[in-house]
Amino acid sequence: MSYVLINGEIVERSQAKVDIEDRGYQFGDGVYEVVRIYNGKPFALSEHLDRFYESAEKIYMKIRYEKMELEKKLLSLLNIENAGTCSLYLQYTRGTAFRNHVIPSELEGTLTAYILHGSQGRNTSLMEKGISTILAEDTRWLHCDIKSISLLGNVLLKHKATMAGCAEAILHRGSTVTEGSATNVWMIKDGVLKTHPANNLILNGITRQKILTVCKRNGIPVEEKAFTVSELLNADEAFISSTTLEITPIISIDGVKVGNGSPGELTRTLHNLFVKFIEEECQTTL
Amino acid sequence: MSYVLINGEIVERSQAKVDIEDRGYQFGDGVYEVVRIYNGKPFALSEHLDRFYESAEKIYMKIRYEKMELEKKLLSLLNIENAGTCSLYLQYTRGTAFRNHVIPSELEGTLTAYILHGSQGRNTSLMEKGISTILAEDTRWLHCDIKSISLLGNVLLKHKATMAGCAEAILHRGSTVTEGSATNVWMIKDGVLKTHPANNLILNGITRQKILTVCKRNGIPVEEKAFTVSELLNADEAFISSTTLEITPIISIDGVKVGNGSPGELTRTLHNLFVKFIEEECQTTL
Repeated sequence: MSYVLINGEIVERSQAKVDIEDRGYQFGDGVYEVVRIYNGKPFALSEHLDRFYESAEKIYMKIRYEKMELEKKLLSLLNIENAGTCSLYLQYTRGTAFRNHVIPSELEGTLTAYILHGSQGRNTSLMEKGISTILAEDTRWLHCDIKSISLLGNVLLKHKATMAGCAEAILHRGSTVTEGSATNVWMIKDGVLKTHPANNLILNGITRQKILTVCKRNGIPVEEKAFTVSELLNADEAFISSTTLEITPIISIDGVKVGNGSPGELTRTLHNLFVKFIEEECQTTL
Repeated sequence: MSYVLINGEIVERSQAKVDIEDRGYQFGDGVYEVVRIYNGKPFALSEHLDRFYESAEKIYMKIRYEKMELEKKLLSLLNIENAGTCSLYLQYTRGTAFRNHVIPSELEGTLTAYILHGSQGRNTSLMEKGISTILAEDTRWLHCDIKSISLLGNVLLKHKATMAGCAEAILHRGSTVTEGSATNVWMIKDGVLKTHPANNLILNGITRQKILTVCKRNGIPVEEKAFTVSELLNADEAFISSTTLEITPIISIDGVKVGNGSPGELTRTLHNLFVKFIEEECQTTL
């Protein structure tokens, strides 16, 4: 809120500027993560950082801090900010160089991290009431497994949803549902959960992975298997998952009710189990 | 080189900074142009600016300067820089706001413009000798007609070419050739030019459009028609076109010679005609 970790130093928010030739600004040449903080305790920080380094590696970028060192810096920031429940944003770009598509060698990257404005507290109202969604053709690139800041495709799809008065766009390539514009998508039919397998067409959400763990622990049947738009429209329940929205029911798609149009029971049960999981992991009470 | 036009003001290069929450930096949420300047005279500036506004419109972004006003500002910059032959870069992002995928309303965008380092003079050696290229699957998004700064897909494809010791990657979706990672691609067979039609799969290059004009004026047969990788590999001649590289022959693809492995005759003729066209338009001698 008030401070930003930029290139290893914690500075006042107003001081956090970057050069116009930072490759993040001219090429979207960087990666990012959003980590949820519950009562000051980061949830799945290690997994988020692992993905951060993996995304960087996939774009041939070396993050100049070791994981332990980065983690320490982030915890310092949280401490200074006296963070409660909020979202920590971190980004790493390839750094500043004379503009050229060719990736320069030996460049010092730019790290920025701070607490996202408006991320305080959990949006329990949305999680309880559920969201309306639209369907949209997935026109993004074929490396959706990379959590890159070249996000214009996602932004335009989210915009489509917003213009329709909806909270999220459910994306599909042809008839196959992939994910949401900033979330993973799940459907439930006859007590079985389904979500798109983790390949190049989706971001393998940390929340998605934790939900799979919770399902296994609790004997809830789940399949990592692609499903079609028409399967989704005929689902008993559906929900999105993300770091910020945890498990949030989908109550309508393109104006058509999912199930009876209110949040599904298994979705609610799963969210309760997920909250318990967070409480255990973060050793806190939500 | 020394100055940057930023938000209507011309400042020293070192002063040109942007906020970390400029949406250009976090979402690649912006558009850009590169305009070639020949002996101080901009080539096809009006067309570049038209496309700049068109790209902005396609992402629902309003540029807060009228075209005439923007043109005036750019000409002032060129004047202060005493620009000779070089490339003028301009970029407009949606502006600074608390991070959220949702497009904020009523945002003031960020304009930056400056002369690209290393862009002085024409790379006539490359234009004469030609370039080696590789083939690469086109994994970018499906809005390549928008000249957006979410360029990581293009950067990764250029990197592939660089790693192979080549200057450009020729992209294909399945068997269909689309364009280069930062250029348009052309082939010549039996005296007829072919290039991909201007749709959502390619950027409709200003140089591409001017080449079509030059062809028409000089009675050179040309088809805006997609061609396959195997047609390209069997072409008599091939070349790329771009603002910076004008018309540059492709002499090899994945190590296979194009024609006899040296720049083609019609390509050379066309480039000469194109240079004459620039000289006329800019009223200068190259």
